[in-house]
Amino acid sequence: MSIHTLPTDRLVGGNSIPMNTTTVHAYAATEANGSFEPFEYELSEAAPNAVDIAVESCGICHSDLSMLEDAWGISAFPLVPGHEVIGKVINTGEAVSHVDVGDRVGLGWHAGYCMFCDQCLSGHHNLCSSAEPTIAGRHGGFADVVRAHSASVAKIPDGLDASKAGPLLCGGMAVFSPFVELGIEPTGSVAVIGIGGLGHMALKFARAWGCEVTAFTSSESKQEEAKLLGAHHAINSRDPDAIKAAAGRFDLILNTVNVSLDWNAYMATLKSRGRLHFLGAVTEPLGIHVIPMMFGQQAVTASPVGSPAVMRKMLAFAARHDVTPVTEHFPMAKVNDAMEHLRSGKARYRIVLDN
Amino acid sequence: MSIHTLPTDRLVGGNSIPMNTTTVHAYAATEANGSFEPFEYELSEAAPNAVDIAVESCGICHSDLSMLEDAWGISAFPLVPGHEVIGKVINTGEAVSHVDVGDRVGLGWHAGYCMFCDQCLSGHHNLCSSAEPTIAGRHGGFADVVRAHSASVAKIPDGLDASKAGPLLCGGMAVFSPFVELGIEPTGSVAVIGIGGLGHMALKFARAWGCEVTAFTSSESKQEEAKLLGAHHAINSRDPDAIKAAAGRFDLILNTVNVSLDWNAYMATLKSRGRLHFLGAVTEPLGIHVIPMMFGQQAVTASPVGSPAVMRKMLAFAARHDVTPVTEHFPMAKVNDAMEHLRSGKARYRIVLDN
Repeated sequence: MSIHTLPTDRLVGGNSIPMNTTTVHAYAATEANGSFEPFEYELSEAAPNAVDIAVESCGICHSDLSMLEDAWGISAFPLVPGHEVIGKVINTGEAVSHVDVGDRVGLGWHAGYCMFCDQCLSGHHNLCSSAEPTIAGRHGGFADVVRAHSASVAKIPDGLDASKAGPLLCGGMAVFSPFVELGIEPTGSVAVIGIGGLGHMALKFARAWGCEVTAFTSSESKQEEAKLLGAHHAINSRDPDAIKAAAGRFDLILNTVNVSLDWNAYMATLKSRGRLHFLGAVTEPLGIHVIPMMFGQQAVTASPVGSPAVMRKMLAFAARHDVTPVTEHFPMAKVNDAMEHLRSGKARYRIVLDN
Repeated sequence: MSIHTLPTDRLVGGNSIPMNTTTVHAYAATEANGSFEPFEYELSEAAPNAVDIAVESCGICHSDLSMLEDAWGISAFPLVPGHEVIGKVINTGEAVSHVDVGDRVGLGWHAGYCMFCDQCLSGHHNLCSSAEPTIAGRHGGFADVVRAHSASVAKIPDGLDASKAGPLLCGGMAVFSPFVELGIEPTGSVAVIGIGGLGHMALKFARAWGCEVTAFTSSESKQEEAKLLGAHHAINSRDPDAIKAAAGRFDLILNTVNVSLDWNAYMATLKSRGRLHFLGAVTEPLGIHVIPMMFGQQAVTASPVGSPAVMRKMLAFAARHDVTPVTEHFPMAKVNDAMEHLRSGKARYRIVLDN
């Protein structure tokens, strides 16, 4: 167990002088792929724009596992993952106006933005080059308390089941944001590749958005499940003839898997002006043929999570349409068991740690 | 010389009964890569939506050469190319209301649309799967008269230099359409790869659109010329360091070349939310890396020519901003010399045949 004081002044520009402190009880890994152990650190006095959240629950996202593995080379240890936080505000800096102590809020992949670059001032805070990931260079939500910049914190609307809402804050944002950013119409036809942690939420959001929804899945058992989750149709992604038969059908395909598929075969299932959108971090080059894209005026697009404005829209939309992930729950103290369950690939579909 | 009667009823649905005929004096190649020779064919009575145009001038587009070579396997011989037509209406079918005999009009890549598919009814006629290319399955503008469906014909605005306007109808449409379709803002930064027949018009349109304009060109001599054509900046596309130095600069890159370049290097010159747009028919797969695209929420897009509505906007915009191509002129009878000049790669920048 170690004690670590976060440089909280980093969140707001450097003028605060640490005074009173709060001890955070967290779970940290001290090395890549290490087990989680209890870990305490001190939060100094809240800077003007800081919000401290008493964590009620925290989803586990696949990127928590990637950070634990230091897969992206940006992990610092001790590492406290957790960036799908639901909790109650217990303290705010003096400049915070849009949330109050006692409010139930959510916190996702980003815990702070510079607020003044072109992207931030245009409402695209998630593209801010100084955006602070909640679990890189700071400590996340596998804890009793987490701190964030107020702009990254959104109120959880009444009517949304808060106990299951955590995974909406990162995974849900990833799949919802393209509907807003690409201007998808409820009259459109949307397909989702991969019915897992992201894909199952994509099916629910696409159905609630009003679209005709198709699931591409390699798993026979998931074809029926996809329909229960909101798909009107399910297509076996291991059957090239079935993919071929879907020629010209979709306005949007959301790819949620990170393996290489026959992308040109999927491009052929787009309507003219359709988009193949990547949420899965495919590492191999895409190898897309541009000539059919030209004739169909099609596009290949991609996006990371979403902006604070889209987060508010997403939460209000999820509450109105009762969109929540399918969750499995572990007590926070069983974080090692929960992470092992994620590693096994058997999570159906998102894991939530409860305090 | 041979006589050929076009099935004009094809243009409008099949109810017209050929009666009076017009003899068209054209230039045709009778085989792939053949020379052009005088060629006559008969136009039967105009169907209800047909417009007959007395050709004043006709641009030569690289796709005329591709059709002459039967590069796409859709050429029929005798082939009368020419799809950048400027001329005067000499005859209209009874249902034609938006152009009158005597009007000066333009005709581009498409000479007809089904008018009733989802794409046509949505204003995206150029994506109609039954759209009729002006020079495939019918005869084009290397002639004294050409016939088209009225929807594909646009009035040439007063104030636009008609003698040079032909190349706007296909090449100009190709480079202008993305500004409309992608919602490019005049505050944006636009780069053009390749300063040739398409690229030089792209520079002019981008400058007139109000954007900051950069030319990527492999030719030292064209760097200065690009600035005369409207570029604020010119970058040597053979210098990887110069491309690297342009990191994060562009909202839109219009690629007008059809050879494979280091597309990931160009993607890195996009701002967040920027687009790499393909007008050049690159045959090799693109090999784009998706992970940086995700972080930057960027897109790879492509488009073919443009719709009739965009054609009207383009012509009005070109007239208002005095955007015309740089042209070289040949008499129509010298079509073989003109085509040889195009083949040589020395055309600066678009060739126009004059009647």
